[in-house]
Amino acid sequence: MNSPYTNLFIKHFPFWEHLSQREKELMAENTESASFKTGEMLYGGEEDCAGIIIVETGQLRAYMLSEDGRDITLYRLFEDDVCVMSASCVLEAVTFDVFIEAVTDSSILVINSKVFKDIVKQNIHVDEYMYRLATIRFSDVMWSMQQILFMSFDKRLAIFLLEETEKNSSNEIKFTHEQIAKLMGSAREVVTRMLKYFSDEGIVTLSRGMITIKDKEKLKKII
Amino acid sequence: MNSPYTNLFIKHFPFWEHLSQREKELMAENTESASFKTGEMLYGGEEDCAGIIIVETGQLRAYMLSEDGRDITLYRLFEDDVCVMSASCVLEAVTFDVFIEAVTDSSILVINSKVFKDIVKQNIHVDEYMYRLATIRFSDVMWSMQQILFMSFDKRLAIFLLEETEKNSSNEIKFTHEQIAKLMGSAREVVTRMLKYFSDEGIVTLSRGMITIKDKEKLKKII
Repeated sequence: MNSPYTNLFIKHFPFWEHLSQREKELMAENTESASFKTGEMLYGGEEDCAGIIIVETGQLRAYMLSEDGRDITLYRLFEDDVCVMSASCVLEAVTFDVFIEAVTDSSILVINSKVFKDIVKQNIHVDEYMYRLATIRFSDVMWSMQQILFMSFDKRLAIFLLEETEKNSSNEIKFTHEQIAKLMGSAREVVTRMLKYFSDEGIVTLSRGMITIKDKEKLKKII
Repeated sequence: MNSPYTNLFIKHFPFWEHLSQREKELMAENTESASFKTGEMLYGGEEDCAGIIIVETGQLRAYMLSEDGRDITLYRLFEDDVCVMSASCVLEAVTFDVFIEAVTDSSILVINSKVFKDIVKQNIHVDEYMYRLATIRFSDVMWSMQQILFMSFDKRLAIFLLEETEKNSSNEIKFTHEQIAKLMGSAREVVTRMLKYFSDEGIVTLSRGMITIKDKEKLKKII
């Protein structure tokens, strides 16, 4: 049987060749597509266990939440990324809550966690894949944490802006200060103040919902 | 062949039954014991890849370091704990630097990373174990991070003191303020100030290198 997802699965899952025919069918039968608008939450809370997510288009953000509602971005997911944190009931070693929202309009595929849980139990290759991917994500998270805890904010913001221009191959960054604050695990006021400083220095120009990089070399020197 | 470590390996490694006789021998032949004094660093830096650590006695602390030398405790390791982060060259998905030091005088066993790397490549069960354990540790780290980033310091210190009394089944906590600051990822001044407050409230009494819990119920109410 060849499902419409077969090629996608082959591309994303190194364990594919180790699945039985029945396991391949089960995965295909339990995959659904979904779309989310900018800012919409697609995963979150203790009870949630959606499943494995493949990002088809758009951008997602995984974050953790404090009791009083503050959040810290753990990592971002881009086109073709796979997320296993959204299947915490499959990953029994993960004991904290992750929330995921759409940073831009996004379409995703979700492979139901229930069927995945069964396959993980039967198949060590799938099990290994889940934990390896979790380790990769956590390693990214540690990098973010190191930045938040150790690095001065001007450096962090400079790195963020440079990365965004590279991702989009454009000197225009279409984020509000509020969005940048969320993505960086900071507060809007802090972002606005530092951007104002960058603007005064002639590094950027600011307009509504957009930041334009004017002097990339000067921005790089801050790092 | 039965090495002096066989029973220990059976106890710690669920993958043991999946090893070939040769793999079992290789592990035993490449295991060494080592002792470290309080405060001694036993693992650290980019180049290091000691191997898998089993804590026999004592207590270790894994931490990350900023460029200017500040550190944040990621997790602690107690008797019978296994650490895979000390074999970062085996765990290719881990891309940040971990340092490990002895919190108290400690004796450990180290299984050489070179031999482990070969076994991981051959044996998916060992591979799965490595990544599962890494995920468990990272999950602990996330809990620490959530505390550091979100929780007020009085709560964190109260939790720390209560946990220590439980670990040692004693109301006496034999740590200096400096040591507590390190373990909590804080500064000595902050710890001293809060302990002084706890002391004024009659919750603890302070003496050189030791804190004694006087009113556990009051301490619990802070949380």
